[in-house]
Amino acid sequence: MTTTTPTLPPVDFAARLSGRAQRMTVSAIRELLKLTQRPDIISFAGGLPAPELFPLADIRTAANAVLDRYGPAAVQYGTTEGHLPLREWIAARTPGLTPAHVQIVTGSQQGLDLLGKILIDEGDVVLVEAPTYLGALQSFQPYGPRYVDLPTDEHGIDVDALETVLKATPAKLLYAIPNFQNPTGRTLSLERRRRLVELTAQYGVLVLEDDPYGKLRFRGEDLPSLYEIALELAGGDPEGSHVIYSGSFSKTLVPGLRDAWVQAAHPVIEKLVQAKQGADLHTPIFNQMIITELVGEVLPRQVELVKKAYGERARDMVARIEQHFPAGVDFTTPEGGMFLWVTLPEGLDTTELFPRALERGVAYVPGRPFYARGGGANTMRLSYSNATPAQIDSGIRALGETIRGALD
Amino acid sequence: MTTTTPTLPPVDFAARLSGRAQRMTVSAIRELLKLTQRPDIISFAGGLPAPELFPLADIRTAANAVLDRYGPAAVQYGTTEGHLPLREWIAARTPGLTPAHVQIVTGSQQGLDLLGKILIDEGDVVLVEAPTYLGALQSFQPYGPRYVDLPTDEHGIDVDALETVLKATPAKLLYAIPNFQNPTGRTLSLERRRRLVELTAQYGVLVLEDDPYGKLRFRGEDLPSLYEIALELAGGDPEGSHVIYSGSFSKTLVPGLRDAWVQAAHPVIEKLVQAKQGADLHTPIFNQMIITELVGEVLPRQVELVKKAYGERARDMVARIEQHFPAGVDFTTPEGGMFLWVTLPEGLDTTELFPRALERGVAYVPGRPFYARGGGANTMRLSYSNATPAQIDSGIRALGETIRGALD
Repeated sequence: MTTTTPTLPPVDFAARLSGRAQRMTVSAIRELLKLTQRPDIISFAGGLPAPELFPLADIRTAANAVLDRYGPAAVQYGTTEGHLPLREWIAARTPGLTPAHVQIVTGSQQGLDLLGKILIDEGDVVLVEAPTYLGALQSFQPYGPRYVDLPTDEHGIDVDALETVLKATPAKLLYAIPNFQNPTGRTLSLERRRRLVELTAQYGVLVLEDDPYGKLRFRGEDLPSLYEIALELAGGDPEGSHVIYSGSFSKTLVPGLRDAWVQAAHPVIEKLVQAKQGADLHTPIFNQMIITELVGEVLPRQVELVKKAYGERARDMVARIEQHFPAGVDFTTPEGGMFLWVTLPEGLDTTELFPRALERGVAYVPGRPFYARGGGANTMRLSYSNATPAQIDSGIRALGETIRGALD
Repeated sequence: MTTTTPTLPPVDFAARLSGRAQRMTVSAIRELLKLTQRPDIISFAGGLPAPELFPLADIRTAANAVLDRYGPAAVQYGTTEGHLPLREWIAARTPGLTPAHVQIVTGSQQGLDLLGKILIDEGDVVLVEAPTYLGALQSFQPYGPRYVDLPTDEHGIDVDALETVLKATPAKLLYAIPNFQNPTGRTLSLERRRRLVELTAQYGVLVLEDDPYGKLRFRGEDLPSLYEIALELAGGDPEGSHVIYSGSFSKTLVPGLRDAWVQAAHPVIEKLVQAKQGADLHTPIFNQMIITELVGEVLPRQVELVKKAYGERARDMVARIEQHFPAGVDFTTPEGGMFLWVTLPEGLDTTELFPRALERGVAYVPGRPFYARGGGANTMRLSYSNATPAQIDSGIRALGETIRGALD
């Protein structure tokens, strides 16, 4: 719909879009989340960290300290690789790692995009969990991957099925969220982690380990990351790891400063630096300096605070689900993170159910968009991170009624 | 060079890079700028805004005000399109424009990257000034454009040559910096602006107008942007403009908060929102809120301050060049912005000269990397924005000696 004077011919923008742009789609969730922002709706839909836990006073102190200490350098152009003290802090978490193995990115989403950009050619096979993080699918999609779904169960990716896939299909990349996965909340078992790392190494497939929630374990024991396992198998040499690790401060500190990182072997980081330079020159230096102020004392305290709160909320939601949902509904019991996953009896469709849930004042995310290759019509993602006990009680009750209504 | 234990086969990362990654190159300037950071070097190389002019106290006040006013929302996830009050302020600058025509980006570099992503298919012809902004070439390069150089003179792009090119070559996009161009400092004349807008509309070529310096005119009269001319020809309807405008706060306020925008017709913005969502979800909301605090009173004051300072520095540098450079050296006399452009007699090579200039304690950027298709061996870019009168005097004197030495 263009209106023009006779002096300029109308512009047909659609005809000028790249193939890449044509592969991009409007996020179903994005459109849907707009509906859930009504104040009368209890929303378990968004993946928002609890804002009442944000360390606002510390952020204020840090912002002022950074301006005092660095002066104009806090708001001048910075280096593409990122603020060195922050990269040093990140590298120091893993023996053998140096700042040269760390690239700061503007939120882990940027890491996914840049890694897609430097790794995925049109038609390249990318192995993904079924279901997986929708935002990763969105990041990779413009680059034209061919997704192959990896079946998952309560312990994460089925590694026997993975081996079958690897034998049959030459793949470029495996994308996985081993800890408290988005959307399922599931955690990949230690045995499967080892097997996944070995199998992918054997078949020459790079692994992108996305770990935004790893520090937020509120039950059970921490497991080594895929990256740590690969590093161990490579004799501690980061150059020998075929696992690329994506970490973030969005879920442990705050998301709105957009600070995250990628750690990987030099050849990956070198190319990532080039990609990043073309993409946005560098992540805001002021924000990186603020985060650096916080990682020492505030971060560990925040992690404890957030874990405790999310643990209580998860327990609460599970208890209410047991109380209010009808028989035949399955759900996951996460050991950390922000999400749990609900599977309704076959034949129900959570997309169709959504308007009815909204009528009852509750929102969730229908599961279908999390499947790269379709499926999951009877699934939904619930987030407990940003809900009070009262909201969990009445929201889950309303959702139970919605499900019961659909079963009648 | 990978070292591994027998358990993991070595990883050949190079073999796994995408075609896109293989098209990326290390920026010659980036490597060179590292050499110029020695404290004993007077550098006219970097395109850094003058840090002593940054409104640090205002930024501090704004940061604290934003945390007070918005609380956790200042550091929570934000919308992909950007902070609405900032988009409203940007839209209000141009009659007919609405916030729906404005996308906030993480520095104008991100706008260039995302526009390249949604517009450029491999082999698409992109028309660029010869020379042009190196960073734009870097942004577009991964998407595989075929660059066609547009000849320029002291008034910018030669529009007769443009017409010849348009007749001969179906092009997707024309990329131009009409005001105080990087690297030449030249400004496209009003008559040529009109002709460029009409010709590209007639031949169905989109225009990307990059305008980071437009507000920094210290001599002469402001000219309408290509965007404003296209809008006028389209009867004031933003949907009829084939010009896409890229604006930035990096040169008028500070670069380190990484806040810029793209304004364009809806179909472009809609696709840009999708691309941006996959690329980094959104620009840091805290930073956008700080900028919004500053655009009212601080920005106009800063623009006056910066214009005055850069105007004096430009005059100073021109005067010293006239005094110290040998005959046969040409240079531009900018009416705004941060750069001027020097052309040495044919046969001299500014890349070869560079180490000799460094020995004399002065640095510049050799002109060659600014040419998409080669050439410009005898050219160099000088930045005056971040230099004191004393530095300009002794730096230009040293550069003059270097050039004389090469001519002997």
